[in-house]
Amino acid sequence: MNFTEIDYKISDNCAVVTLNRPAQLNAWTPTMAAEVRAAMRMAADDQNVRVIVLTGAGRGFCAGADMKRLSGISESGRIVDTQPEAFDPTSRKDYQRKNTYFPAVPKPIIAAINGPCAGLGLCMALFCDLRFAAEDASFTTAFARRGLIAEHGISWTLPRLVGQSAAADLLFSGRKFLAPEAHRMGMLDRIYPADRLMEETLAYAGEIARFSSPRSLKIMKRQLWETSMQTLDEAMDVADAEMALSLKSEDFKEGVQHFLEKRPPAFTGK
Amino acid sequence: MNFTEIDYKISDNCAVVTLNRPAQLNAWTPTMAAEVRAAMRMAADDQNVRVIVLTGAGRGFCAGADMKRLSGISESGRIVDTQPEAFDPTSRKDYQRKNTYFPAVPKPIIAAINGPCAGLGLCMALFCDLRFAAEDASFTTAFARRGLIAEHGISWTLPRLVGQSAAADLLFSGRKFLAPEAHRMGMLDRIYPADRLMEETLAYAGEIARFSSPRSLKIMKRQLWETSMQTLDEAMDVADAEMALSLKSEDFKEGVQHFLEKRPPAFTGK
Amino acid sequence: MNFTEIDYKISDNCAVVTLNRPAQLNAWTPTMAAEVRAAMRMAADDQNVRVIVLTGAGRGFCAGADMKRLSGISESGRIVDTQPEAFDPTSRKDYQRKNTYFPAVPKPIIAAINGPCAGLGLCMALFCDLRFAAEDASFTTAFARRGLIAEHGISWTLPRLVGQSAAADLLFSGRKFLAPEAHRMGMLDRIYPADRLMEETLAYAGEIARFSSPRSLKIMKRQLWETSMQTLDEAMDVADAEMALSLKSEDFKEGVQHFLEKRPPAFTGK
Repeated sequence: MNFTEIDYKISDNCAVVTLNRPAQLNAWTPTMAAEVRAAMRMAADDQNVRVIVLTGAGRGFCAGADMKRLSGISESGRIVDTQPEAFDPTSRKDYQRKNTYFPAVPKPIIAAINGPCAGLGLCMALFCDLRFAAEDASFTTAFARRGLIAEHGISWTLPRLVGQSAAADLLFSGRKFLAPEAHRMGMLDRIYPADRLMEETLAYAGEIARFSSPRSLKIMKRQLWETSMQTLDEAMDVADAEMALSLKSEDFKEGVQHFLEKRPPAFTGK
Repeated sequence: MNFTEIDYKISDNCAVVTLNRPAQLNAWTPTMAAEVRAAMRMAADDQNVRVIVLTGAGRGFCAGADMKRLSGISESGRIVDTQPEAFDPTSRKDYQRKNTYFPAVPKPIIAAINGPCAGLGLCMALFCDLRFAAEDASFTTAFARRGLIAEHGISWTLPRLVGQSAAADLLFSGRKFLAPEAHRMGMLDRIYPADRLMEETLAYAGEIARFSSPRSLKIMKRQLWETSMQTLDEAMDVADAEMALSLKSEDFKEGVQHFLEKRPPAFTGK
Repeated sequence: MNFTEIDYKISDNCAVVTLNRPAQLNAWTPTMAAEVRAAMRMAADDQNVRVIVLTGAGRGFCAGADMKRLSGISESGRIVDTQPEAFDPTSRKDYQRKNTYFPAVPKPIIAAINGPCAGLGLCMALFCDLRFAAEDASFTTAFARRGLIAEHGISWTLPRLVGQSAAADLLFSGRKFLAPEAHRMGMLDRIYPADRLMEETLAYAGEIARFSSPRSLKIMKRQLWETSMQTLDEAMDVADAEMALSLKSEDFKEGVQHFLEKRPPAFTGK
């Protein structure tokens, strides 16, 4: 596939999706959105891919919606937007919208945030499962300073990561904040010196690819993103049904076997 | 308006509401409750006010329900309480009760916690959007040591700020804890030396007043307090509808314009 | 009562339930499950018991489901499991299942995690109200490395303690992590040098037993575990009804009285 605004590479069992408009700090465009979606589909369908990493080319991660486009919208007062088909029609309706589908991708997505991450760029990063960042990466919600609102689900994702109060601070002020603060708040899982970010992210992704059952990862990811909207009773119904299925799986047999034989696992995802 | 148990002042674009019974550590009374509500109404209606600060006179923030009143209730075994009208009848029902209406006030409320903050005083602080505190301020839920229960919504607000486990610790033990611990737990956004608390709080409020659209603040505040009880799908319905409205607003035009012209914004809230 | 796989002791007003298969790091068996449940019942019914501590004998807390049993399940592909009666039939349905009943026990349960805590052992610890641990205790969710899923409610409890992102890290990787990291994440309330864990846990439990009304503890515990699945409005209905009841209680009278008389309380739980 020929991409024009992203780059797609496989490294071991990891798909690396790179936003690739470095001169514009990878500002988000309709083309980029379509290409990221196509890349996520390729990664989901590729048996060889067990983990997905999303990062940016050059010195930024994603500066948010392209300013030229915002400016055009500001003149016309409206946005012409098409809603694509659901990434996974069996997923919760919540994850079938244009910018909320990362939770419907059946493999872990790790954001490797290499530099500035703002507005829509931040919204997309918050729908990833995990966030690793360069220590000097900067962040801003930006919306309040543009006269906008808490867009693209950030009023829902942000408080679930950093708590209600920190979310209010970041949304109300639209202030710039740096990776160490974002880490302390719980928005980032790990921070690294910029020159080690990619290597450390791939090392972590490699660990998951080697030691965790792809079948387990797929079910667990769905459980995590569904449970946040379920009662414990509903979550237990899912867990008990999935536990019974997992006990018949090849990966469970292998999971016990490799442990008893004290050797690395050879999971197949079945 | 003549207040007897609070003080109300405007400083730049910020309304400062001060609980003012310093000899009783600003213990909460029915009169104080009515006056705080009237002050919040004034601040909401005043176009010049963009942010509200709630603080206490003297060395305390609020010691909780007035002990004489508690003692009277203890003798009679009941509380005679009137439910005021909804602060905003279009807000969620959750925010229409006597002590839960701060989220229905359409401007950010920052608690500037200058000293002891206990029981009902803590409950009210937790319904503010943000909490800044003096480093030596002390806190206690107090209820378990009075034979009471988790009153005034604290069983709902506290776990959402500090997690289920820390909430159990603070509610079960009724122990005293200090600002630095409260900060680490996520209950406080910022802590400052006591003599700098007010100045720093007003500086932060001033930043929001200067750089954030009042229209954005109003919508975002409502989004944040509603989203905590919504599915992502419901939150996205609100976000998409509000985004479309914001794109037609004056504040969005100004938000793009000032950015392109590299000058401070002049938002009108329209 | 004669227990074979646990130990049950009363120390002051605290019941200590000790998992007692030290040679197997207290791996969980059906017998142990039944005995823990019986011990929780005894502690709930004993007027003298105000707080419950759950810990492990020897160098571990609980290594998870017994490996021999897992291996047997792996061969047969199924688990024969009986669902016991609800611990408290008036509790939410969520807390009536086999391994989710700790929230239905009407007294605070503190896990004193003395060593390795894995899989099902971790799930049970997360249903306790509080978690204190030895600084060198190690943890792992383990499931992904066994080809299993997020079992026994951990997809629901874990994100509520550590956030969505850290929960994904711990579930996806199945990696081992130590008490200090678990503490920073919010999974543990306190960590202590191993040789002081039990003494410190009992000291904290003793404080609650001495200064908090048992009536307050029972209501507050139920509030906390119910509120996480309620709207604020629903939580306020409960809080207002319970507040009215508490105002007629003996413990409230004593709660005000001992405060005014500046003496320690003598609560009866009535």
